[in-house]
Amino acid sequence: MPIEYTDPDEVLQALFSTQSVQPEVVEVSVADALNRVLAEEVRSPIDVPAFDSSHLDGYALRSVDTIAASPQNPVALSIRGSIELGVEPPKMIQAGEAYRVRTGSYLPEGCDAVIGKEEVYVEGEKVYITRPVKAGSEVVKKGSDVAKGMIVLRSGHKLRAQDLGMLRLLRYSRVKVYAEPVVGVASIGSELTESVEEAERGKTLNTHAYTITALIKSAGGKPLYLGIVPDDPQAIKDTILNGLAKSSLLLTIGGSSVGEADLVSKTLQTLTPTTFKHGLKLHPGRVAGCCVLNGKAVITLPGLIQSTVNAFVYLALPLIKKLSGREATSYDATVRARLAEDLTFHRFPDFKKMTWVSLKKEDKELVAYPIRGDSPMLNVLVKADGYILTEPNKMIVKKDTYVDVALVAGLSSLP
Amino acid sequence: MPIEYTDPDEVLQALFSTQSVQPEVVEVSVADALNRVLAEEVRSPIDVPAFDSSHLDGYALRSVDTIAASPQNPVALSIRGSIELGVEPPKMIQAGEAYRVRTGSYLPEGCDAVIGKEEVYVEGEKVYITRPVKAGSEVVKKGSDVAKGMIVLRSGHKLRAQDLGMLRLLRYSRVKVYAEPVVGVASIGSELTESVEEAERGKTLNTHAYTITALIKSAGGKPLYLGIVPDDPQAIKDTILNGLAKSSLLLTIGGSSVGEADLVSKTLQTLTPTTFKHGLKLHPGRVAGCCVLNGKAVITLPGLIQSTVNAFVYLALPLIKKLSGREATSYDATVRARLAEDLTFHRFPDFKKMTWVSLKKEDKELVAYPIRGDSPMLNVLVKADGYILTEPNKMIVKKDTYVDVALVAGLSSLP
Repeated sequence: MPIEYTDPDEVLQALFSTQSVQPEVVEVSVADALNRVLAEEVRSPIDVPAFDSSHLDGYALRSVDTIAASPQNPVALSIRGSIELGVEPPKMIQAGEAYRVRTGSYLPEGCDAVIGKEEVYVEGEKVYITRPVKAGSEVVKKGSDVAKGMIVLRSGHKLRAQDLGMLRLLRYSRVKVYAEPVVGVASIGSELTESVEEAERGKTLNTHAYTITALIKSAGGKPLYLGIVPDDPQAIKDTILNGLAKSSLLLTIGGSSVGEADLVSKTLQTLTPTTFKHGLKLHPGRVAGCCVLNGKAVITLPGLIQSTVNAFVYLALPLIKKLSGREATSYDATVRARLAEDLTFHRFPDFKKMTWVSLKKEDKELVAYPIRGDSPMLNVLVKADGYILTEPNKMIVKKDTYVDVALVAGLSSLP
Repeated sequence: MPIEYTDPDEVLQALFSTQSVQPEVVEVSVADALNRVLAEEVRSPIDVPAFDSSHLDGYALRSVDTIAASPQNPVALSIRGSIELGVEPPKMIQAGEAYRVRTGSYLPEGCDAVIGKEEVYVEGEKVYITRPVKAGSEVVKKGSDVAKGMIVLRSGHKLRAQDLGMLRLLRYSRVKVYAEPVVGVASIGSELTESVEEAERGKTLNTHAYTITALIKSAGGKPLYLGIVPDDPQAIKDTILNGLAKSSLLLTIGGSSVGEADLVSKTLQTLTPTTFKHGLKLHPGRVAGCCVLNGKAVITLPGLIQSTVNAFVYLALPLIKKLSGREATSYDATVRARLAEDLTFHRFPDFKKMTWVSLKKEDKELVAYPIRGDSPMLNVLVKADGYILTEPNKMIVKKDTYVDVALVAGLSSLP
């Protein structure tokens, strides 16, 4: 049966609308929440700071008392005491008074300015001010960092270092995040081995699973490696069904070409899936496919490494992101770069083309160098920093065109 | 004693030349090496592929035999057998012969082209070719992915998903990487608490350590949290000495201002360090400092969060990167962006200024929005995607200038 190629976005859409796994919510300690995806809206229960506060070590005062101050005629204010950190401001400040404060000390009511201790001199219980202090000077206003009720972080946000500090500042000890979806991975092929010794004797060392499980981790998923499965329909069927029972999504690697050993797609069809697709209008990656079994997606990644990774990026990455509560995109960011040379395509006119590029900085500008090399070549990916997607029927992208380079976590780096 | 401000690069240089901790090398399994820093040069011990190979399922042949082929006059070649995957090519191909091959099958000597099975027809033991097949067609040359002896990955490279596949392809089971340096973290201040209940009663909740330990992890270090230390010289001394014994580098947070409670710097001085600096020409972050004790660096981060993070980024990040075998930079990448508004500075003319910005994509261009807010404000960092460093004596950067925005792992994100 000849393979039927479908628009990859259509395939992804079909997959999304048929698979029924939903993101799950779990609670973790704030200290363990780095890089997790927030599953709640964080609205501040408090004002930060809780009161007007001092920006430095010095003296809190009423600005009106200092209007006439000058080096010749300093204003003397009575020091009423010290305000320690984290202590509620004691009382109303009176005319002619000052309080000794530290950076972060709360200010008493009526006090509208602070002057640094280096700028004044003290004699006995008096502090001498030698210049007018403007209202608001060195005062951090109540709620100026975070106001009570303010939305600080939104659901779907990937938590960074400073967000953990913020959660703690807002009194969170634990926080709701999306569970990492478990992603099953099976390597298909009787020629494969995990043993270097067997590889020396002619078998093919299983390498793709290393790359794919690392990409799953980087995407926020939890890989469940199911091992090597021989080219045998029953073994393939058993692995897929057992693997699916323990995961939210399953990926097979290899065995999806149009060759004689293309058993995975045939085997999947016998399981009467809800959606079945074999063939993407994506090059490299065209022999990829997918289906839905018991509400869960199975994605069949081709065996030639660039096709394996392209199909992962186009179909599996958005689904893993969706299942972990994030926006379902086939990249994590894009950067604009100037194309270093013409990009020409000779085959598959109505396909999307994925071209891996390396990025260099030249005259402060990002330049994208397309990497030559056929789809079995892993070294193309080792040299790559990101990919360019070229739309169907565009057979040339001219040198010096500015293109969007897509970056993928775990795969990309920026110069 | 008034604080003496030094150029932050000079301080970093002094730290680097006095501290004597060296990166350590450990061996890990390739499967566990994601995001680790390579500590050896990876030179390929083999050719990949090991022999000329087929790019698809079809028939391997000698191109000379097909010169005269046409639909009217197909050339019939004798099928001498099938070549399975991972099997050494059997023998020399003879004139008029073909071998059945799969994608990745090795080709016999003398065979210089492959034709896809969809393009031919087979009758009995003969395959019929209806067009001339060019020499080299669908052949993946021996060593064309990776040639024997080629340097594939260099020491100091952070391993990505595809690099793990490559290491495995080159027969690596374990790989030498740099150990994650242990970084001690102590929060200084009698006003601090780890308990939300105590914070409700007036104490200051310890939040900065959450951000700093997460930044250490993101930088490739292993944080060792030493807890809260009260404003007591003996307690500070004990924590620093005990902490240093268990770590490669120690960070204190808070207690470093010019205020009365500035005990950390004073305490460090009593320990007669090799290098002692207090005060950076960096704003915010100027009250940071550092010293070297027993060959190990102690960095005193200020207590106002933007200063804490700035001093971390400027002094601690490069040192953690150096100790884990990477280039000692205060960022992980930079991107070019257009400044959305004037950036003006009114104080500290001869200081470097660090401005946190959020990044937005407008008309496919990156635009940097400076975030307003004083150094105690954590929300500035929560809104931030990266920072701009402005050189001393530059008091204005005009709107629409193109600036480099520095990105820091664990802190930054790209739109």
